[in-house]
Amino acid sequence: MKKRLAYLGPPGTYSEEAALLYDPDAELLPVQSLPVVIASVDSGEADEGIVPIENSLEGAVTFTVDILIHESDLLIKDELVLPIHHCLIARSGVSLEDIRDAALVVYSHPQSLAQCREYLHRRFPNAALMPSPSNAAAVGDMLKSETPALAIAGKRAAANYDAQIVDEEVEDNHSNATRFVVLASSDSPPTGSDKTSLCFNFDADSPGILVSVLTEFSGRGINLNKIESRPTRKFLGRYIFLVDIDGHKQDAVVQDALASVRRQVAMLKVLGSYPRCSLDSLDP
Amino acid sequence: MKKRLAYLGPPGTYSEEAALLYDPDAELLPVQSLPVVIASVDSGEADEGIVPIENSLEGAVTFTVDILIHESDLLIKDELVLPIHHCLIARSGVSLEDIRDAALVVYSHPQSLAQCREYLHRRFPNAALMPSPSNAAAVGDMLKSETPALAIAGKRAAANYDAQIVDEEVEDNHSNATRFVVLASSDSPPTGSDKTSLCFNFDADSPGILVSVLTEFSGRGINLNKIESRPTRKFLGRYIFLVDIDGHKQDAVVQDALASVRRQVAMLKVLGSYPRCSLDSLDP
Repeated sequence: MKKRLAYLGPPGTYSEEAALLYDPDAELLPVQSLPVVIASVDSGEADEGIVPIENSLEGAVTFTVDILIHESDLLIKDELVLPIHHCLIARSGVSLEDIRDAALVVYSHPQSLAQCREYLHRRFPNAALMPSPSNAAAVGDMLKSETPALAIAGKRAAANYDAQIVDEEVEDNHSNATRFVVLASSDSPPTGSDKTSLCFNFDADSPGILVSVLTEFSGRGINLNKIESRPTRKFLGRYIFLVDIDGHKQDAVVQDALASVRRQVAMLKVLGSYPRCSLDSLDP
Repeated sequence: MKKRLAYLGPPGTYSEEAALLYDPDAELLPVQSLPVVIASVDSGEADEGIVPIENSLEGAVTFTVDILIHESDLLIKDELVLPIHHCLIARSGVSLEDIRDAALVVYSHPQSLAQCREYLHRRFPNAALMPSPSNAAAVGDMLKSETPALAIAGKRAAANYDAQIVDEEVEDNHSNATRFVVLASSDSPPTGSDKTSLCFNFDADSPGILVSVLTEFSGRGINLNKIESRPTRKFLGRYIFLVDIDGHKQDAVVQDALASVRRQVAMLKVLGSYPRCSLDSLDP
């Protein structure tokens, strides 16, 4: 039986590209929001769910992070990084040379329009930029337009609408990439190159306590990949810290560090151990 | 001459409440976006600007944080915390007893509607919830409604429209508060109870380097109030760390710590020293 993989739809989004990159053989279940991705795995309608957790330009996807901290007991079983390359898309049969700047409209999600601002200004200084609710929807808006129009979206969106890609990698900053995590009821066995995500907080704040906890890892030679702070939602000035470390929660050295951390914190939640995705290919 | 203080308008927003709490005698300059708040101080049109930097439920206002890190040389000269209390607002002369649930519409910004969801469900289970572009605009939408309507917004919005507050503190989580900072071309002199905000990053990542930098503060007894990580915008997996410490940049112990930090980082930017705002009154 095929793995059922829930993702944030509609088809044609970058989440669908990530789902296909993760498992091209999965049965893809597009759903309408991130909480529904989680709920469909909780209920068993989906075996796994794939959600964005971090973007190289925008930072943490706090919505996903807060669900993992506060609301879900699902575990992170894998991660992958999707380079975000925007395409310039036209009706089928149109080429870049056919496109005139005068009276042109360019549709995309406002964030994508912003990410291609310099390119658009250079190539089409007189074009009107029009917001669409998603990149996938922008291709539909372009096709319905009665005046000359283009859309900015990913390759999948072009393919889904049978539209024409007329230029590629039109984003101004080519280091645009999003990290996705795969959530399921259990995480992954050790592979020898793993990461573990965890979160913790304290009853009180004191000068040394965060540093003391981080030293439990660094003092054992465990690399700290990232540290985020998120609100406790109880009051301003108290935080839950989210940390990614190298190693698997079954590794003896990680178990030893976690046992020491547990004695110093009010709450410790291990969010999962999973194979480390290499970021080397994204180095500029 | 009055101090000219720029804030994110329109009048009636929580930013206006924060501006009045900070300096009731200032000449208030409402502007249309956070970058324009910064630009108007840079250009000298305003003497100071007030911007939200952190909310107790949503976390960092990353837009503001990223401007301070990447784009502005303005300094933080003060901070204040505004408790966010939503009011239920009706036309002038209406009381809570007059309001019937049937065919009722409640207008507010989507985030405020979400923050009052349980209250609204309990009091008006049949009301339709309608999004408005801002809390201040919701009061205008309510007044223009041809069917029975209410708005959720702050006290200032009710006063600006001469509308009636029919219930107060209707938010579900009473620990909702936003921290604002005041930006100017120079920061504040020492008062004996100060904070300093700074950000830094590294050329490479290695297990101990972040912990080593944080130990420069904790090892000298300098309290760390918060730590945030933000993307470098160069590539995924490298971060700029934003840290708030107790003490003033002119304090000998802080100067000593900063000198040691500077030797270990690729970039260090001190964002300002300013009087510490007590959060004790917000403790639940």
